[in-house]
Amino acid sequence: MERYQVILAYDGTQFEGFQRQGKARTVQGVVEAALRQIGWQGRTILAAGRTDSGVHATGQVIAFDLAWPHPEEDLLRALNANLPLDVAARSVKAVAASFHPRFDALARSYCYHIECEPVRSPLRERYAWRVWPPLALVSLEQAARYLPGRHDFAAFGTPPHPKGSTVRTVFAAGWSLDGTRLVFTIRADAFLYHMVRRLVAAQVQIGQGLRPPEALAEALETTLPLTQGLAPPQGLVLTQVDYPPN
Amino acid sequence: MERYQVILAYDGTQFEGFQRQGKARTVQGVVEAALRQIGWQGRTILAAGRTDSGVHATGQVIAFDLAWPHPEEDLLRALNANLPLDVAARSVKAVAASFHPRFDALARSYCYHIECEPVRSPLRERYAWRVWPPLALVSLEQAARYLPGRHDFAAFGTPPHPKGSTVRTVFAAGWSLDGTRLVFTIRADAFLYHMVRRLVAAQVQIGQGLRPPEALAEALETTLPLTQGLAPPQGLVLTQVDYPPN
Repeated sequence: MERYQVILAYDGTQFEGFQRQGKARTVQGVVEAALRQIGWQGRTILAAGRTDSGVHATGQVIAFDLAWPHPEEDLLRALNANLPLDVAARSVKAVAASFHPRFDALARSYCYHIECEPVRSPLRERYAWRVWPPLALVSLEQAARYLPGRHDFAAFGTPPHPKGSTVRTVFAAGWSLDGTRLVFTIRADAFLYHMVRRLVAAQVQIGQGLRPPEALAEALETTLPLTQGLAPPQGLVLTQVDYPPN
Repeated sequence: MERYQVILAYDGTQFEGFQRQGKARTVQGVVEAALRQIGWQGRTILAAGRTDSGVHATGQVIAFDLAWPHPEEDLLRALNANLPLDVAARSVKAVAASFHPRFDALARSYCYHIECEPVRSPLRERYAWRVWPPLALVSLEQAARYLPGRHDFAAFGTPPHPKGSTVRTVFAAGWSLDGTRLVFTIRADAFLYHMVRRLVAAQVQIGQGLRPPEALAEALETTLPLTQGLAPPQGLVLTQVDYPPN
């Protein structure tokens, strides 16, 4: 028996989130079903984070224990042969038996994609939020500059446990333009529930000139919500989870 | 009654092609149904081209006659309100009553997207062909350089009518790299059936070093197929149709 770490990518559109729940189609559910096809008899896989319904991933990290007497690349192939087309194992490696994808994670990175367009654009909207009027990139960049550091993010999300801390450390946050697409990238030690999508909704108001960039700094200081808005899930991608070397 | 030209975008994944056929879900079918919702009583819309099952569009052009007593932008909104999410009218304008989107077209442009990756990547494969081993961009570029000009493309497709000409004029063709994505762009007066997908399949063989770039020139000269391969539909997008000014 060996513990394996797998980097997982999925198109979240047709999943009711990551976490297994009854008969709903979930990422955890289809991954565990695929593992059972190749002899896994565990009860549950471990995961770095539980993405919401409709949220995508290119760098979700899971772990499980499996007796696999063949090379790792065969395990990768076997897993992908048993997974539906909207989920893929991107890499597989054997890790220490104590490895835990959530507790050992040092940082998580997310991207959020926005298309500024007045009219629907079917080929661009599966993985982006369409926003109109357009956003001023310079205001978005100014707002994002307040994010890095250790802050109380109570204005932008709820903790995973009822009385948990709402303090998180953002290592980096910023906006870039990729073709017609605005991309918000954020890396933090951990995230509150809905934190990225609420930060995006707030910055969209700032980008549309409805509030000044300083409103974001103020919300961090006062912990009072800047908006109740929540950016839709299809723009969000969990891109990377970082661990200590080894 | 006025003739309107509409630029149409669609995600072809869940359509059995453009052309109406019985009870199959087709782009023409859903567009005509949307038009009927807003009072259209015609028999059929006209279109610049009939894309195959699974092929996408950002610049398909259609035309129809409609009595619409309101501004064009209201027609755009009304159409989009009645279309399913995987189709959108991108623009609407009144045109001459004689306008025909197919017969008046001077040129059509297509893009074909390829991802070179050994492992499945769900977020990138809805709109691209995943190819491995990877392709040498320099060989692709060399091959594409043979395409512009007036050639007999019989090696790369069949004419729309049984005894029709297989001669077409390519105005421009080339490869570029967009992030991890290889993009083949081609503009011609018109295309044979399957022509872009067969040109792509042939160039993929060249890019993998299975044939030299000159094999493409040879196939144009001899009209003998270079390969029977057909690139899959999901990488292909009809991006633009050009008309004479006015």
